[in-house]
Amino acid sequence: MAETAAAPTAGATIGDSEFDRDTAVTLREPGVYDTDLSAGWTIINAVNGGYLLAVVGRALAHALPHADPFTVSAHYLTASEPGPAVIRTETVRDGRGLSTGQASLVQYEPDGTEVERLRVLASYGDLDALPDDVRTTAVPPALPPVEHCFGPDDAPDDRPLPGSSAIVERLWLKLDPATLGWALGQPSGKGEMRAWFGLADGRPADPLALLLAVDALPPTAFEMGLSGWVPTVELTAHVRARPAPGPLRVAITTRNLAGGFLEEDAEVWDSADRLVAQSRQLARVRLR
Amino acid sequence: MAETAAAPTAGATIGDSEFDRDTAVTLREPGVYDTDLSAGWTIINAVNGGYLLAVVGRALAHALPHADPFTVSAHYLTASEPGPAVIRTETVRDGRGLSTGQASLVQYEPDGTEVERLRVLASYGDLDALPDDVRTTAVPPALPPVEHCFGPDDAPDDRPLPGSSAIVERLWLKLDPATLGWALGQPSGKGEMRAWFGLADGRPADPLALLLAVDALPPTAFEMGLSGWVPTVELTAHVRARPAPGPLRVAITTRNLAGGFLEEDAEVWDSADRLVAQSRQLARVRLR
Repeated sequence: MAETAAAPTAGATIGDSEFDRDTAVTLREPGVYDTDLSAGWTIINAVNGGYLLAVVGRALAHALPHADPFTVSAHYLTASEPGPAVIRTETVRDGRGLSTGQASLVQYEPDGTEVERLRVLASYGDLDALPDDVRTTAVPPALPPVEHCFGPDDAPDDRPLPGSSAIVERLWLKLDPATLGWALGQPSGKGEMRAWFGLADGRPADPLALLLAVDALPPTAFEMGLSGWVPTVELTAHVRARPAPGPLRVAITTRNLAGGFLEEDAEVWDSADRLVAQSRQLARVRLR
Repeated sequence: MAETAAAPTAGATIGDSEFDRDTAVTLREPGVYDTDLSAGWTIINAVNGGYLLAVVGRALAHALPHADPFTVSAHYLTASEPGPAVIRTETVRDGRGLSTGQASLVQYEPDGTEVERLRVLASYGDLDALPDDVRTTAVPPALPPVEHCFGPDDAPDDRPLPGSSAIVERLWLKLDPATLGWALGQPSGKGEMRAWFGLADGRPADPLALLLAVDALPPTAFEMGLSGWVPTVELTAHVRARPAPGPLRVAITTRNLAGGFLEEDAEVWDSADRLVAQSRQLARVRLR
Protein backbone atom coordinates (compact mmCIF):
# COMPACT_ATOMS: atom_id res chain seq x y z
CA MET A 1 0.00 0.00 0.00
CA ALA A 2 1.06 3.55 -0.63
CA GLU A 3 2.01 5.90 2.15
CA THR A 4 -1.21 7.26 3.59
CA ALA A 5 -1.03 10.95 3.01
CA ALA A 6 -2.41 14.20 4.28
CA ALA A 7 -4.62 14.70 1.27
CA PRO A 8 -7.36 17.30 1.20
CA THR A 9 -10.52 16.31 2.99
CA ALA A 10 -12.75 19.30 2.32
CA GLY A 11 -15.56 16.95 1.55
CA ALA A 12 -16.45 17.57 -2.06
CA THR A 13 -17.92 14.50 -3.74
CA ILE A 14 -18.04 13.06 -7.22
CA GLY A 15 -20.96 14.98 -8.68
CA ASP A 16 -20.75 17.94 -6.28
CA SER A 17 -17.39 19.64 -6.70
CA GLU A 18 -15.59 22.41 -8.59
CA PHE A 19 -14.36 19.87 -11.12
CA ASP A 20 -17.88 18.54 -11.76
CA ARG A 21 -19.40 22.01 -12.08
CA ASP A 22 -16.61 23.21 -14.38
CA THR A 23 -16.80 20.16 -16.66
CA ALA A 24 -20.61 20.13 -16.81
CA VAL A 25 -22.18 19.79 -20.25
CA THR A 26 -25.79 20.50 -21.22
CA LEU A 27 -27.54 18.62 -23.98
CA ARG A 28 -28.63 21.06 -26.68
CA GLU A 29 -29.80 18.54 -29.25
CA PRO A 30 -28.94 14.87 -29.80
CA GLY A 31 -25.16 14.53 -29.69
CA VAL A 32 -24.51 18.27 -29.22
CA TYR A 33 -23.58 19.78 -25.85
CA ASP A 34 -23.07 23.26 -24.50
CA THR A 35 -20.40 23.93 -21.93
CA ASP A 36 -18.68 26.89 -20.35
CA LEU A 37 -14.91 26.58 -20.10
CA SER A 38 -13.94 27.85 -16.67
CA ALA A 39 -11.14 30.34 -16.15
CA GLY A 40 -10.34 28.31 -13.05
CA TRP A 41 -8.32 25.72 -14.96
CA THR A 42 -5.93 27.98 -16.81
CA ILE A 43 -2.16 27.83 -16.58
CA ILE A 44 0.24 30.33 -18.14
CA ASN A 45 -2.96 31.91 -19.54
CA ALA A 46 -3.99 28.80 -21.48
CA VAL A 47 -6.85 26.48 -20.65
CA ASN A 48 -5.27 23.26 -19.35
CA GLY A 49 -5.32 20.42 -21.87
CA GLY A 50 -6.29 17.79 -19.31
CA TYR A 51 -9.27 19.87 -18.20
CA LEU A 52 -10.38 20.18 -21.84
CA LEU A 53 -10.04 16.42 -22.21
CA ALA A 54 -12.25 15.91 -19.15
CA VAL A 55 -14.94 18.25 -20.52
CA VAL A 56 -15.03 16.46 -23.87
CA GLY A 57 -14.78 13.14 -22.03
CA ARG A 58 -17.91 13.98 -20.07
CA ALA A 59 -19.84 14.83 -23.24
CA LEU A 60 -18.79 11.51 -24.79
CA ALA A 61 -19.79 9.65 -21.61
CA HIS A 62 -23.28 11.08 -22.11
CA ALA A 63 -23.41 10.45 -25.83
CA LEU A 64 -22.06 6.90 -25.93
CA PRO A 65 -23.68 3.75 -24.56
CA HIS A 66 -20.68 3.21 -22.25
CA ALA A 67 -19.70 5.63 -19.50
CA ASP A 68 -15.99 5.04 -18.92
CA PRO A 69 -13.21 6.33 -21.16
CA PHE A 70 -10.82 3.47 -22.01
CA THR A 71 -8.68 5.28 -24.58
CA VAL A 72 -9.03 8.91 -25.59
CA SER A 73 -6.95 10.53 -28.34
CA ALA A 74 -7.07 14.32 -28.63
CA HIS A 75 -5.48 16.48 -31.29
CA TYR A 76 -5.23 20.08 -30.10
CA LEU A 77 -5.88 22.52 -32.92
CA THR A 78 -6.05 26.03 -31.47
CA ALA A 79 -5.74 27.49 -27.97
CA SER A 80 -9.04 27.36 -26.07
CA GLU A 81 -10.27 30.35 -24.11
CA PRO A 82 -12.43 30.53 -21.00
CA GLY A 83 -16.06 30.96 -21.95
CA PRO A 84 -18.81 29.22 -23.90
CA ALA A 85 -18.00 26.25 -26.09
CA VAL A 86 -19.98 23.68 -28.04
CA ILE A 87 -19.11 19.98 -28.24
CA ARG A 88 -20.41 18.00 -31.18
CA THR A 89 -20.23 14.25 -30.80
CA GLU A 90 -20.69 11.38 -33.21
CA THR A 91 -21.21 7.74 -32.25
CA VAL A 92 -18.82 5.93 -34.55
CA ARG A 93 -19.45 2.39 -33.29
CA ASP A 94 -21.87 1.02 -30.76
CA GLY A 95 -20.29 -2.27 -29.71
CA ARG A 96 -21.13 -4.68 -26.94
CA GLY A 97 -17.97 -4.27 -24.87
CA LEU A 98 -16.63 -1.04 -26.32
CA SER A 99 -18.15 1.87 -28.14
CA THR A 100 -16.24 4.47 -30.11
CA GLY A 101 -17.06 8.12 -30.45
CA GLN A 102 -15.70 11.27 -31.92
CA ALA A 103 -16.02 14.79 -30.58
CA SER A 104 -15.17 18.26 -31.67
CA LEU A 105 -14.98 21.21 -29.29
CA VAL A 106 -15.56 24.58 -30.92
CA GLN A 107 -15.70 28.18 -29.79
CA TYR A 108 -16.88 31.32 -31.53
CA GLU A 109 -15.06 34.52 -32.41
CA PRO A 110 -16.84 37.81 -31.61
CA ASP A 111 -17.93 37.99 -35.26
CA GLY A 112 -19.52 34.54 -34.99
CA THR A 113 -16.77 32.62 -36.80
CA GLU A 114 -16.54 29.09 -35.50
CA VAL A 115 -13.07 27.92 -34.48
CA GLU A 116 -12.35 24.30 -33.63
CA ARG A 117 -10.20 23.84 -30.52
CA LEU A 118 -9.72 20.12 -30.32
CA ARG A 119 -10.82 16.96 -32.10
CA VAL A 120 -11.12 13.76 -30.12
CA LEU A 121 -11.49 10.06 -30.92
CA ALA A 122 -12.30 7.80 -28.00
CA SER A 123 -13.29 4.28 -27.12
CA TYR A 124 -15.45 3.82 -24.04
CA GLY A 125 -16.37 0.77 -21.99
CA ASP A 126 -17.37 -0.32 -18.51
CA LEU A 127 -14.41 -0.47 -16.12
CA ASP A 128 -16.47 -2.37 -13.55
CA ALA A 129 -17.07 -5.18 -16.04
CA LEU A 130 -13.36 -5.97 -16.47
CA PRO A 131 -11.83 -9.05 -14.87
CA ASP A 132 -9.73 -8.45 -11.76
CA ASP A 133 -6.72 -10.14 -13.28
CA VAL A 134 -3.55 -8.04 -12.87
CA ARG A 135 -0.20 -9.24 -14.21
CA THR A 136 1.66 -5.99 -14.30
CA THR A 137 5.42 -5.65 -14.16
CA ALA A 138 5.23 -1.89 -13.70
CA VAL A 139 6.11 -0.56 -10.28
CA PRO A 140 4.79 2.63 -8.69
CA PRO A 141 7.03 5.69 -8.94
CA ALA A 142 9.49 6.18 -6.09
CA LEU A 143 7.93 9.22 -4.46
CA PRO A 144 8.81 10.49 -0.98
CA PRO A 145 6.01 10.78 1.58
CA VAL A 146 3.75 13.78 1.07
CA GLU A 147 5.28 15.65 4.00
CA HIS A 148 8.62 15.63 2.17
CA CYS A 149 7.12 16.93 -1.07
CA PHE A 150 6.33 20.50 -1.99
CA GLY A 151 3.46 22.44 -3.46
CA PRO A 152 2.95 26.06 -4.39
CA ASP A 153 1.88 26.80 -0.80
CA ASP A 154 5.31 25.77 0.41
CA ALA A 155 7.15 28.36 -1.67
CA PRO A 156 8.50 31.35 0.28
CA ASP A 157 6.80 34.59 -0.70
CA ASP A 158 9.92 36.02 -2.25
CA ARG A 159 10.45 33.00 -4.48
CA PRO A 160 7.10 31.80 -5.78
CA LEU A 161 7.06 28.64 -7.81
CA PRO A 162 6.87 29.67 -11.46
CA GLY A 163 3.84 28.78 -13.45
CA SER A 164 1.44 29.63 -10.65
CA SER A 165 -1.91 30.30 -12.17
CA ALA A 166 -5.60 29.66 -11.56
CA ILE A 167 -5.41 25.88 -11.85
CA VAL A 168 -2.95 25.73 -8.98
CA GLU A 169 -5.73 26.73 -6.57
CA ARG A 170 -7.89 23.82 -7.67
CA LEU A 171 -5.27 21.10 -7.51
CA TRP A 172 -3.59 19.49 -4.56
CA LEU A 173 -0.14 18.90 -5.99
CA LYS A 174 2.91 17.92 -3.95
CA LEU A 175 6.02 17.61 -6.08
CA ASP A 176 8.93 15.28 -5.45
CA PRO A 177 11.85 17.54 -4.45
CA ALA A 178 14.08 15.45 -6.74
CA THR A 179 12.15 16.90 -9.69
CA LEU A 180 11.84 20.44 -8.36
CA GLY A 181 15.28 21.80 -9.29
CA TRP A 182 13.69 23.95 -12.01
CA ALA A 183 11.74 25.90 -9.38
CA LEU A 184 15.03 26.89 -7.73
CA GLY A 185 16.82 27.72 -10.96
CA GLN A 186 18.72 24.44 -10.96
CA PRO A 187 16.97 22.02 -13.30
CA SER A 188 18.33 18.48 -13.09
CA GLY A 189 18.45 18.06 -16.85
CA LYS A 190 16.40 14.87 -16.52
CA GLY A 191 13.03 14.63 -18.22
CA GLU A 192 11.17 13.62 -15.09
CA MET A 193 8.43 15.08 -12.90
CA ARG A 194 6.66 13.30 -10.07
CA ALA A 195 3.92 14.40 -7.71
CA TRP A 196 1.15 13.44 -5.37
CA PHE A 197 -2.09 14.56 -6.99
CA GLY A 198 -5.60 15.31 -5.87
CA LEU A 199 -8.34 17.90 -6.20
CA ALA A 200 -8.06 20.74 -3.71
CA ASP A 201 -11.67 20.47 -2.56
CA GLY A 202 -11.22 16.81 -1.68
CA ARG A 203 -13.28 15.39 -4.54
CA PRO A 204 -12.21 11.77 -5.05
CA ALA A 205 -10.71 10.79 -8.38
CA ASP A 206 -12.77 9.02 -11.03
CA PRO A 207 -12.00 8.19 -14.67
CA LEU A 208 -12.75 11.76 -15.81
CA ALA A 209 -10.41 13.17 -13.15
CA LEU A 210 -7.70 10.83 -14.48
CA LEU A 211 -7.97 12.63 -17.83
CA LEU A 212 -7.10 15.79 -15.91
CA ALA A 213 -4.34 14.13 -13.89
CA VAL A 214 -2.31 13.00 -16.90
CA ASP A 215 -1.72 16.60 -17.99
CA ALA A 216 -1.65 18.47 -14.68
CA LEU A 217 2.01 18.46 -13.64
CA PRO A 218 4.55 21.12 -14.65
CA PRO A 219 6.05 20.03 -17.99
CA THR A 220 9.14 17.84 -17.96
CA ALA A 221 10.70 20.49 -20.19
CA PHE A 222 11.13 22.71 -17.12
CA GLU A 223 13.38 20.11 -15.50
CA MET A 224 15.30 19.82 -18.78
CA GLY A 225 16.17 23.51 -18.47
CA LEU A 226 13.66 24.79 -21.01
CA SER A 227 11.13 27.40 -20.06
CA GLY A 228 8.05 28.72 -21.75
CA TRP A 229 5.00 27.18 -23.20
CA VAL A 230 5.07 23.52 -24.29
CA PRO A 231 1.86 23.23 -26.32
CA THR A 232 0.39 19.78 -26.73
CA VAL A 233 -0.12 18.64 -30.31
CA GLU A 234 -1.74 15.32 -29.41
CA LEU A 235 -2.43 13.48 -26.20
CA THR A 236 -3.74 9.94 -25.82
CA ALA A 237 -4.78 8.64 -22.42
CA HIS A 238 -5.66 5.08 -21.42
CA VAL A 239 -7.79 4.62 -18.32
CA ARG A 240 -7.12 1.13 -17.00
CA ALA A 241 -9.02 0.96 -13.72
CA ARG A 242 -11.36 2.99 -11.56
CA PRO A 243 -9.11 4.64 -8.96
CA ALA A 244 -9.38 3.69 -5.30
CA PRO A 245 -10.11 6.52 -2.86
CA GLY A 246 -7.09 8.48 -1.69
CA PRO A 247 -4.31 10.48 -3.28
CA LEU A 248 -2.90 9.59 -6.67
CA ARG A 249 0.74 9.46 -7.66
CA VAL A 250 1.62 10.84 -11.09
CA ALA A 251 4.98 10.40 -12.83
CA ILE A 252 5.79 11.95 -16.18
CA THR A 253 8.84 11.18 -18.26
CA THR A 254 10.40 12.49 -21.46
CA ARG A 255 13.03 10.40 -23.23
CA ASN A 256 13.23 11.97 -26.64
CA LEU A 257 13.57 15.73 -27.05
CA ALA A 258 14.48 16.24 -30.70
CA GLY A 259 13.60 18.39 -33.67
CA GLY A 260 11.58 20.82 -31.58
CA PHE A 261 9.22 18.17 -30.24
CA LEU A 262 9.13 15.93 -27.22
CA GLU A 263 6.99 13.10 -25.98
CA GLU A 264 5.68 13.16 -22.43
CA ASP A 265 4.59 9.85 -20.91
CA ALA A 266 2.44 9.94 -17.79
CA GLU A 267 1.44 7.19 -15.46
CA VAL A 268 -1.05 7.52 -12.65
CA TRP A 269 -1.13 5.19 -9.65
CA ASP A 270 -3.85 4.98 -7.05
CA SER A 271 -3.63 4.39 -3.29
CA ALA A 272 -4.08 0.65 -3.85
CA ASP A 273 -0.89 0.59 -5.97
CA ARG A 274 -2.74 0.04 -9.22
CA LEU A 275 -1.63 1.66 -12.44
CA VAL A 276 -4.94 3.37 -13.22
CA ALA A 277 -3.97 5.51 -16.22
CA GLN A 278 -1.22 5.89 -18.79
CA SER A 279 -0.83 8.63 -21.34
CA ARG A 280 1.55 9.88 -23.96
CA GLN A 281 1.56 13.28 -25.59
CA LEU A 282 3.53 14.89 -28.38
CA ALA A 283 4.34 18.50 -27.59
CA ARG A 284 6.22 21.29 -29.28
CA VAL A 285 9.08 22.86 -27.44
CA ARG A 286 11.06 25.96 -28.17
CA LEU A 287 14.74 25.04 -28.12
CA ARG A 288 17.16 27.73 -27.10
CA MET B 1 26.65 3.65 -35.14
CA ALA B 2 24.59 0.53 -35.16
CA GLU B 3 26.04 -2.79 -36.19
CA THR B 4 26.02 -2.88 -39.98
CA ALA B 5 23.80 -5.73 -40.87
CA ALA B 6 23.09 -8.12 -43.67
CA ALA B 7 19.81 -6.48 -44.59
CA PRO B 8 17.96 -7.30 -47.80
CA THR B 9 19.34 -5.60 -50.86
CA ALA B 10 16.89 -6.75 -53.51
CA GLY B 11 16.79 -3.24 -54.83
CA ALA B 12 13.20 -2.11 -54.39
CA THR B 13 12.93 1.64 -53.99
CA ILE B 14 10.61 4.07 -52.26
CA GLY B 15 7.84 4.38 -54.84
CA ASP B 16 8.55 1.07 -56.59
CA SER B 17 8.05 -1.78 -54.13
CA GLU B 18 5.49 -4.23 -52.79
CA PHE B 19 4.77 -1.88 -49.91
CA ASP B 20 4.15 1.07 -52.22
CA ARG B 21 1.93 -0.92 -54.56
CA ASP B 22 -0.06 -2.42 -51.70
CA THR B 23 -0.59 0.92 -49.95
CA ALA B 24 -1.47 2.81 -53.14
CA VAL B 25 -4.57 4.98 -53.05
CA THR B 26 -6.46 6.45 -56.01
CA LEU B 27 -8.29 9.74 -55.80
CA ARG B 28 -11.97 9.19 -56.52
CA GLU B 29 -13.21 12.67 -55.67
CA PRO B 30 -11.77 15.43 -53.48
CA GLY B 31 -10.78 13.87 -50.16
CA VAL B 32 -12.02 10.37 -51.06
CA TYR B 33 -9.67 7.57 -52.09
CA ASP B 34 -10.05 4.02 -53.35
CA THR B 35 -7.63 1.36 -52.29
CA ASP B 36 -7.34 -2.41 -52.43
CA LEU B 37 -6.22 -4.02 -49.19
CA SER B 38 -3.71 -6.69 -50.11
CA ALA B 39 -3.88 -10.22 -48.74
CA GLY B 40 -0.10 -9.98 -48.55
CA TRP B 41 -0.10 -8.19 -45.21
CA THR B 42 -2.29 -10.53 -43.20
CA ILE B 43 -1.26 -12.27 -40.01
CA ILE B 44 -3.29 -14.90 -38.20
CA ASN B 45 -5.87 -14.22 -40.95
CA ALA B 46 -6.29 -10.56 -40.03
CA VAL B 47 -5.05 -7.59 -42.02
CA ASN B 48 -2.10 -6.16 -40.07
CA GLY B 49 -2.91 -2.97 -38.18
CA GLY B 50 0.33 -1.24 -39.11
CA TYR B 51 -0.29 -1.90 -42.80
CA LEU B 52 -3.78 -0.39 -42.44
CA LEU B 53 -2.25 2.63 -40.74
CA ALA B 54 0.17 3.05 -43.63
CA VAL B 55 -2.65 2.87 -46.21
CA VAL B 56 -4.68 5.51 -44.38
CA GLY B 57 -1.48 7.46 -43.74
CA ARG B 58 -0.82 7.61 -47.47
CA ALA B 59 -4.33 8.92 -48.19
CA LEU B 60 -3.87 11.63 -45.56
CA ALA B 61 -0.46 12.53 -47.02
CA HIS B 62 -2.25 13.20 -50.31
CA ALA B 63 -5.17 15.02 -48.77
CA LEU B 64 -3.31 17.30 -46.36
CA PRO B 65 -0.98 20.17 -47.22
CA HIS B 66 1.87 18.41 -45.34
CA ALA B 67 3.27 15.05 -46.40
CA ASP B 68 4.80 13.56 -43.25
CA PRO B 69 2.82 11.95 -40.42
CA PHE B 70 3.92 13.44 -37.08
CA THR B 71 1.28 11.84 -34.87
CA VAL B 72 -1.38 9.39 -36.01
CA SER B 73 -4.11 8.02 -33.72
CA ALA B 74 -6.16 5.11 -35.00
CA HIS B 75 -9.16 3.49 -33.34
CA TYR B 76 -9.79 0.04 -34.81
CA LEU B 77 -13.51 -0.67 -35.10
CA THR B 78 -13.97 -3.94 -36.99
CA ALA B 79 -11.60 -6.45 -38.59
CA SER B 80 -10.55 -5.42 -42.10
CA GLU B 81 -10.51 -7.92 -44.92
CA PRO B 82 -8.38 -8.10 -48.04
CA GLY B 83 -10.14 -6.41 -50.94
CA PRO B 84 -11.51 -3.02 -51.95
CA ALA B 85 -11.82 -0.25 -49.40
CA VAL B 86 -12.66 3.43 -49.47
CA ILE B 87 -10.91 6.08 -47.40
CA ARG B 88 -12.76 9.32 -46.71
CA THR B 89 -10.61 12.14 -45.41
CA GLU B 90 -11.39 15.51 -43.90
CA THR B 91 -8.94 18.37 -43.49
CA VAL B 92 -9.58 19.50 -39.93
CA ARG B 93 -6.97 22.23 -39.76
CA ASP B 94 -4.60 23.66 -42.34
CA GLY B 95 -1.84 25.22 -40.26
CA ARG B 96 1.51 26.63 -41.22
CA GLY B 97 3.73 24.10 -39.48
CA LEU B 98 1.22 21.33 -38.86
CA SER B 99 -2.04 20.29 -40.44
CA THR B 100 -4.57 17.93 -38.93
CA GLY B 101 -6.77 15.50 -40.75
CA GLN B 102 -9.26 12.79 -40.10
CA ALA B 103 -9.84 9.63 -42.08
CA SER B 104 -12.26 6.77 -42.10
CA LEU B 105 -11.57 3.47 -43.87
CA VAL B 106 -14.70 1.59 -44.88
CA GLN B 107 -15.45 -1.67 -46.67
CA TYR B 108 -18.68 -3.06 -48.06
CA GLU B 109 -20.57 -6.22 -47.24
CA PRO B 110 -21.79 -8.31 -50.19
CA ASP B 111 -25.23 -6.71 -49.79
CA GLY B 112 -23.69 -3.25 -50.06
CA THR B 113 -23.79 -2.38 -46.38
CA GLU B 114 -20.94 -0.05 -45.47
CA VAL B 115 -18.82 -1.10 -42.48
CA GLU B 116 -16.24 1.21 -40.97
CA ARG B 117 -12.92 -0.50 -40.18
CA LEU B 118 -10.89 2.23 -38.58
CA ARG B 119 -11.14 5.90 -37.78
CA VAL B 120 -7.99 7.98 -37.70
CA LEU B 121 -6.99 11.43 -36.45
CA ALA B 122 -3.56 12.65 -37.50
CA SER B 123 -1.33 15.70 -37.50
CA TYR B 124 1.10 16.05 -40.38
CA GLY B 125 4.11 18.28 -40.93
CA ASP B 126 7.41 18.45 -42.77
CA LEU B 127 10.11 16.35 -41.10
CA ASP B 128 12.81 17.99 -43.20
CA ALA B 129 11.90 21.40 -41.80
CA LEU B 130 12.63 20.43 -38.19
CA PRO B 131 15.76 21.66 -36.45
CA ASP B 132 18.57 19.11 -36.06
CA ASP B 133 18.69 19.55 -32.32
CA VAL B 134 18.65 16.22 -30.46
CA ARG B 135 18.74 16.05 -26.67
CA THR B 136 17.50 12.57 -26.13
CA THR B 137 18.20 10.45 -23.08
CA ALA B 138 16.76 7.34 -24.71
CA VAL B 139 19.26 4.69 -25.76
CA PRO B 140 18.83 2.18 -28.57
CA PRO B 141 17.62 -1.27 -27.59
CA ALA B 142 20.31 -3.82 -26.76
CA LEU B 143 19.95 -6.10 -29.74
CA PRO B 144 22.50 -8.74 -30.77
CA PRO B 145 24.02 -8.50 -34.25
CA VAL B 146 21.72 -9.69 -37.03
CA GLU B 147 23.64 -12.94 -37.46
CA HIS B 148 22.74 -13.88 -33.89
CA CYS B 149 19.04 -13.12 -34.37
CA PHE B 150 16.40 -15.34 -35.91
CA GLY B 151 13.66 -15.03 -38.46
CA PRO B 152 11.03 -17.42 -39.78
CA ASP B 153 13.55 -18.74 -42.33
CA ASP B 154 15.74 -19.95 -39.49
CA ALA B 155 13.11 -22.22 -37.98
CA PRO B 156 13.62 -25.94 -38.58
CA ASP B 157 10.91 -27.43 -40.76
CA ASP B 158 9.53 -29.57 -37.97
CA ARG B 159 9.14 -26.62 -35.63
CA PRO B 160 7.95 -23.61 -37.58
CA LEU B 161 7.68 -20.30 -35.77
CA PRO B 162 4.04 -19.83 -34.88
CA GLY B 163 2.14 -16.99 -36.44
CA SER B 164 3.70 -17.48 -39.82
CA SER B 165 1.41 -15.90 -42.35
CA ALA B 166 1.49 -13.85 -45.52
CA ILE B 167 3.07 -10.76 -43.98
CA VAL B 168 6.10 -12.80 -42.92
CA GLU B 169 7.12 -13.11 -46.57
CA ARG B 170 7.14 -9.36 -47.03
CA LEU B 171 9.08 -8.43 -43.93
CA TRP B 172 12.72 -8.93 -43.08
CA LEU B 173 12.44 -9.58 -39.36
CA LYS B 174 15.27 -10.94 -37.20
CA LEU B 175 14.20 -11.45 -33.61
CA ASP B 176 16.43 -11.17 -30.57
CA PRO B 177 16.78 -14.72 -29.21
CA ALA B 178 16.25 -13.29 -25.70
CA THR B 179 12.64 -12.55 -26.71
CA LEU B 180 12.05 -15.74 -28.70
CA GLY B 181 11.30 -18.15 -25.86
CA TRP B 182 7.63 -18.23 -26.89
CA ALA B 183 8.57 -19.79 -30.24
CA LEU B 184 10.18 -22.71 -28.39
CA GLY B 185 7.37 -23.11 -25.90
CA GLN B 186 9.31 -21.37 -23.14
CA PRO B 187 8.10 -17.77 -22.93
CA SER B 188 10.23 -15.62 -20.65
CA GLY B 189 7.23 -14.04 -18.95
CA LYS B 190 8.62 -10.59 -19.74
CA GLY B 191 6.58 -8.23 -21.90
CA GLU B 192 9.38 -7.58 -24.36
CA MET B 193 10.01 -8.22 -28.04
CA ARG B 194 12.95 -6.89 -30.06
CA ALA B 195 13.91 -7.28 -33.69
CA TRP B 196 15.83 -5.99 -36.65
CA PHE B 197 13.26 -4.81 -39.18
CA GLY B 198 13.18 -4.13 -42.89
CA LEU B 199 11.11 -4.82 -45.97
CA ALA B 200 11.98 -8.10 -47.66
CA ASP B 201 12.36 -6.56 -51.10
CA GLY B 202 14.94 -4.10 -49.83
CA ARG B 203 12.74 -1.00 -50.01
CA PRO B 204 14.25 1.60 -47.66
CA ALA B 205 12.14 2.83 -44.75
CA ASP B 206 10.31 6.13 -44.90
CA PRO B 207 7.73 7.68 -42.54
CA LEU B 208 4.92 5.51 -43.95
CA ALA B 209 6.99 2.36 -43.44
CA LEU B 210 7.50 3.43 -39.83
CA LEU B 211 3.71 3.22 -39.37
CA LEU B 212 4.03 -0.40 -40.44
CA ALA B 213 7.10 -1.05 -38.30
CA VAL B 214 5.46 -0.07 -35.00
CA ASP B 215 2.93 -2.91 -35.30
CA ALA B 216 4.90 -5.58 -37.15
CA LEU B 217 6.52 -7.67 -34.42
CA PRO B 218 4.89 -10.67 -32.75
CA PRO B 219 2.84 -9.37 -29.80
CA THR B 220 4.53 -9.06 -26.42
CA ALA B 221 1.66 -11.20 -25.12
CA PHE B 222 3.34 -14.27 -26.70
CA GLU B 223 6.42 -13.75 -24.51
CA MET B 224 4.10 -13.32 -21.51
CA GLY B 225 2.79 -16.82 -22.12
CA LEU B 226 -0.49 -15.82 -23.73
CA SER B 227 -1.42 -17.07 -27.14
CA GLY B 228 -4.11 -16.12 -29.56
CA TRP B 229 -5.22 -12.92 -31.10
CA VAL B 230 -4.42 -9.60 -29.39
CA PRO B 231 -6.64 -7.16 -31.27
CA THR B 232 -5.66 -3.50 -31.21
CA VAL B 233 -8.29 -1.14 -29.85
CA GLU B 234 -6.27 2.03 -30.46
CA LEU B 235 -2.77 2.77 -31.67
CA THR B 236 -1.02 6.12 -31.73
CA ALA B 237 2.31 6.52 -33.49
CA HIS B 238 4.68 9.48 -33.43
CA VAL B 239 7.14 9.81 -36.30
CA ARG B 240 10.05 11.88 -35.06
CA ALA B 241 12.57 11.80 -37.89
CA ARG B 242 13.01 10.52 -41.44
CA PRO B 243 14.88 7.23 -41.05
CA ALA B 244 18.42 6.91 -42.37
CA PRO B 245 19.04 4.11 -44.91
CA GLY B 246 19.71 0.70 -43.43
CA PRO B 247 17.95 -1.71 -41.13
CA LEU B 248 15.74 -0.50 -38.30
CA ARG B 249 15.66 -1.80 -34.76
CA VAL B 250 12.24 -2.16 -33.14
CA ALA B 251 11.63 -2.80 -29.45
CA ILE B 252 8.18 -3.30 -27.97
CA THR B 253 7.35 -3.41 -24.30
CA THR B 254 4.30 -4.13 -22.17
CA ARG B 255 4.30 -3.09 -18.54
CA ASN B 256 0.67 -3.30 -17.58
CA LEU B 257 -1.40 -6.38 -18.38
CA ALA B 258 -4.59 -5.98 -16.37
CA GLY B 259 -8.33 -6.32 -16.70
CA GLY B 260 -8.09 -8.03 -20.08
CA PHE B 261 -6.15 -5.21 -21.71
CA LEU B 262 -2.51 -4.38 -22.19
CA GLU B 263 -0.53 -1.47 -23.55
CA GLU B 264 2.24 -2.12 -26.05
CA ASP B 265 4.88 0.58 -26.46
CA ALA B 266 7.08 0.47 -29.53
CA GLU B 267 10.19 2.38 -30.37
CA VAL B 268 11.95 2.33 -33.70
CA TRP B 269 15.62 3.25 -34.15
CA ASP B 270 17.41 3.83 -37.41
CA SER B 271 20.95 2.93 -38.46
CA ALA B 272 22.16 6.36 -37.37
CA ASP B 273 21.02 5.62 -33.81
CA ARG B 274 18.10 8.04 -33.93
CA LEU B 275 14.79 7.30 -32.29
CA VAL B 276 12.66 7.76 -35.41
CA ALA B 277 9.27 6.58 -34.14
CA GLN B 278 7.42 5.83 -30.92
CA SER B 279 4.02 4.28 -30.54
CA ARG B 280 1.64 3.02 -27.90
CA GLN B 281 -1.35 0.81 -28.43
CA LEU B 282 -4.12 -0.48 -26.21
CA ALA B 283 -5.01 -4.07 -27.04
CA ARG B 284 -7.41 -6.65 -25.72
CA VAL B 285 -6.02 -9.91 -24.49
CA ARG B 286 -7.73 -13.13 -23.59
CA LEU B 287 -6.53 -14.16 -20.15
CA ARG B 288 -6.50 -17.85 -19.37
